Amino acid sequence: MRYELYYWPTIQGRGEFIRLALEDAGADYVDVARRPRGMAAMMHLMQSAALRHAPFAPPFLRAGERVIAQTASILLYLGPRLGLAPRSEAGRLWVHQLQLTIADWLLEAHDAHHPIGGGLYYEQQKREARRRAAQFRKERLPKFMGYFEDVLDRTGGERIHYAHLSLFQMIAGLRYAFPRAMRRLEARYPLLVELHARVAARPRLAKYLASRRRIAFNRQGIFRHYPELDG
Amino acid sequence: MRYELYYWPTIQGRGEFIRLALEDAGADYVDVARRPRGMAAMMHLMQSAALRHAPFAPPFLRAGERVIAQTASILLYLGPRLGLAPRSEAGRLWVHQLQLTIADWLLEAHDAHHPIGGGLYYEQQKREARRRAAQFRKERLPKFMGYFEDVLDRTGGERIHYAHLSLFQMIAGLRYAFPRAMRRLEARYPLLVELHARVAARPRLAKYLASRRRIAFNRQGIFRHYPELDG
Repeated sequence: MRYELYYWPTIQGRGEFIRLALEDAGADYVDVARRPRGMAAMMHLMQSAALRHAPFAPPFLRAGERVIAQTASILLYLGPRLGLAPRSEAGRLWVHQLQLTIADWLLEAHDAHHPIGGGLYYEQQKREARRRAAQFRKERLPKFMGYFEDVLDRTGGERIHYAHLSLFQMIAGLRYAFPRAMRRLEARYPLLVELHARVAARPRLAKYLASRRRIAFNRQGIFRHYPELDG
Repeated sequence: MRYELYYWPTIQGRGEFIRLALEDAGADYVDVARRPRGMAAMMHLMQSAALRHAPFAPPFLRAGERVIAQTASILLYLGPRLGLAPRSEAGRLWVHQLQLTIADWLLEAHDAHHPIGGGLYYEQQKREARRRAAQFRKERLPKFMGYFEDVLDRTGGERIHYAHLSLFQMIAGLRYAFPRAMRRLEARYPLLVELHARVAARPRLAKYLASRRRIAFNRQGIFRHYPELDG
């Protein structure tokens, strides 16, 4: 089946967690909004009155007749179909639970630069962002890193699943956004650092990451580098 | 099976979304942390080195040998077992997608009073909260209400599922936290208002809501009433 991914065409954002799974599996997919007239197609489908199950926001995936939204939900659907999830129901729910905790972490990384709201520019909430980013660096970043380090420790030897790919993306994004904070912290989390390197070296992903399909990190995305937020 | 729910004992919070499903189904469950020495039992299980699949935070559910965390993931597991989810895989994933969007909405309702971080008191982020709450009331609240009103319109006649119970809880919580904003808004969303009343009148839930098992809304919870944040 050819999957259609719908997501904003100029950022990695939440769509990247899905792209990584599709790319790693060598799946047949189209990144619709990056094609000519793709944005119009995305907006059209999202607002289509004919859709019984309408998405709240991108990303969403069209798989045959189905349209599925919410990053973690899309990965719950794709995981077993791409060979990137455990076979048992318990194992799948566990990986999904990890993905939901990654989603919480990602949102906090976003809100570090947008603590007041997505409807305002960064420049309109710079002062508040300084305070929130300090909290994020000192309290939340070590808490999430510590949790996932512990998860990797308890579940060592597991086959790579989609939440591992998402953890790679978290480390990559955090290194871009908070290079100083990450340099200070990383030595404490060797399993996360090792996982990041291992995922990046997977043959299909290595190719993808070096290709033009991988959008560069930038200041429109979820991970943003503002030196004043990096302590 | 007797389920064990683990959640903070003095607030509705995220745990309430699970309590509502368990209560509506008349399920056999224990609200562990509300029993004598229950908090110690919760912290002990959460930090247990013997657990392969450890939770990041409450709520979590023990079902036999399994420990499942993340509200939406717990409901994904419980839904079919409690008769509160569709039969088909597509239907279940759809209800789960709704639940994830409700989780996003809930977090924004929380961050309206805690825009800088959960590690600080409200009083330490009061100024920022005013700005964020204004954004929430003007932009986000109508956006989410409009989305779910539209969902109810497109899927009218569906059997009650757990995401409907969660929508009841959203309306109840928002009425407590933002009574003025909600009075102004509600007339535009008659299907949500009707759903709230219909869920509240379900016999087991009506009993539960009138019982002492329903913790009152309060200023330690996710929904908080601060008149200065209500416009």
